[in-house]
Amino acid sequence: MHTFIELSKIFEENFNTRHFPEHTASLYDPAQYILQLGGKRVRPVCVLMGNELFDEIDNDAYHAAAGIELFHNFSLIHDDIMDKAPVRRGMPTVHAKYGESTALLAGDVMLVKAYEYLNKMKAGHLQKVLQLFNNTAKAVCEGQQLDMDFEKLDNVSLDEYLHMITLKTSVLLAASLKLGAILGGTGERNQQHIYEFGKDLGIAFQVQDDYLDAFGDPSTFGKQVGGDIIANKKTFLMIHALEVADDASKATLQKLMIDNPADKVERVLQIYKDCHIDDWAKELKEKYLQTALQHLQDIAVTEKRKGPLKELALFLIDRNH
Amino acid sequence: MHTFIELSKIFEENFNTRHFPEHTASLYDPAQYILQLGGKRVRPVCVLMGNELFDEIDNDAYHAAAGIELFHNFSLIHDDIMDKAPVRRGMPTVHAKYGESTALLAGDVMLVKAYEYLNKMKAGHLQKVLQLFNNTAKAVCEGQQLDMDFEKLDNVSLDEYLHMITLKTSVLLAASLKLGAILGGTGERNQQHIYEFGKDLGIAFQVQDDYLDAFGDPSTFGKQVGGDIIANKKTFLMIHALEVADDASKATLQKLMIDNPADKVERVLQIYKDCHIDDWAKELKEKYLQTALQHLQDIAVTEKRKGPLKELALFLIDRNH
Repeated sequence: MHTFIELSKIFEENFNTRHFPEHTASLYDPAQYILQLGGKRVRPVCVLMGNELFDEIDNDAYHAAAGIELFHNFSLIHDDIMDKAPVRRGMPTVHAKYGESTALLAGDVMLVKAYEYLNKMKAGHLQKVLQLFNNTAKAVCEGQQLDMDFEKLDNVSLDEYLHMITLKTSVLLAASLKLGAILGGTGERNQQHIYEFGKDLGIAFQVQDDYLDAFGDPSTFGKQVGGDIIANKKTFLMIHALEVADDASKATLQKLMIDNPADKVERVLQIYKDCHIDDWAKELKEKYLQTALQHLQDIAVTEKRKGPLKELALFLIDRNH
Repeated sequence: MHTFIELSKIFEENFNTRHFPEHTASLYDPAQYILQLGGKRVRPVCVLMGNELFDEIDNDAYHAAAGIELFHNFSLIHDDIMDKAPVRRGMPTVHAKYGESTALLAGDVMLVKAYEYLNKMKAGHLQKVLQLFNNTAKAVCEGQQLDMDFEKLDNVSLDEYLHMITLKTSVLLAASLKLGAILGGTGERNQQHIYEFGKDLGIAFQVQDDYLDAFGDPSTFGKQVGGDIIANKKTFLMIHALEVADDASKATLQKLMIDNPADKVERVLQIYKDCHIDDWAKELKEKYLQTALQHLQDIAVTEKRKGPLKELALFLIDRNH
């Protein structure tokens, strides 16, 4: 058994290579560029962890992990175009550096390459793996579309937001773990539990992300605290605040979003605190973490094998906040 | 055995359905929209024809044909975004109707859906089919990138243009036929011949397309004659003209492309005629058609089975021009 950090190193050693041909460099250099920006590689390592939970890591799990990481980067390239994001991981986004048309095409070819890695695996699991991968890819696209739809709406319910976030970010984590589990040869029931573990963990992580954006320690958060508030982003916090605040506070929140005054962040935060949104978010995060851990517990393998995944969950979800 | 027209009808009856869920309509309606714009469905019918050349049509060939048609439409949606094209088949393009971000995402989900159709086939052929499909998809992306690269270049050689056109348009026709052939259970040699048949036929068709844009009969061409000349598009004709014209004519061509005078089309056409570009293009088209037909002849099945494909070739390539 390996820890997340160990598997991360092993994956990186395998993955840190050129994934594209040298020819047609105007297409493939931009694709290679984003892969070299790094990142935590959480999803592909989850493939390996899901695999090792049940058996020694199979060579096919490395193919699946590479496919998942390429899919993730495909979605980042295209999302950045849609969001007109200039920077990712401190560097220019692909479209900012190479132009939108090339970025679009580099994303496309990255998605094809993801399928190419999946197709390297032994034929036995291929159809089932592709089915999960296709369903996940569609869900991620749906999530991104809903996210764009929601931007134009005044009212989004917590359930709708939760559904969108689940599709946009959680199902890929869940599917990564399940992919590894399928390749590990375990049955449907264990596959379903590890999927739900990943899904709930992903939601807990997103709640935490929204929480830290508002209440994080500026010295450790890494991004500008209050960034979501400044950008009028719909978050767990804002949606819940609009649901529970009294009419006066609700009107103030809506006016602040339209007027964008200089003290907008501190005034929104004050309303959040008055409505105990911070406590609510901490409880929500804990609820999803606990549900995730329950699914981990329900997986029918010895407790010892679950150590690394439990450690990963507690590492991703900081309970000090 | 069926003719192209018959198979076209059979395919259309199968394909003319909603391919996407009813939910998340903001994503799936735009994807469904382009499929309903119609088109000749040449590529998917080629899958069926490639299949029927060797055996009765297998149910898997319909899945492969649907996958190919979805892939083709994915590439149309994304190409139209890159080309900023407002109209396709007389109707607004997906991005013109639904916005660029949604069109981008609708294209993405269309590509995933293409893989979903491929994954419906029996496991036996899946890995080989996916390998061909992935290689083709990458080639099409490379072709589109080269096309965009060439727009910025003053000088593109005929060989470079041929390479780009082969990737951008011919390999998909070739792969469609070969996909059908694989599912028909034939060997590598026949697969290779039908692939080359499709590739050369595709090139002949593109030469004809470029020719008709300049010398077509306005009453039957369907598009504006001279459209490529007005848009300064690199075509077989323009590239060859720049290669064979004397220095004075070459300078005139280049000046016409910069100045865009009102009589540009007729003056370019005059230079084409002076340099016998029309005859050259007709010969080039005929050369590729003959090579294609030779590959068809070399396929080891009875001549009678080749009737529909030969008919298709002569239908697509009009020898009166």
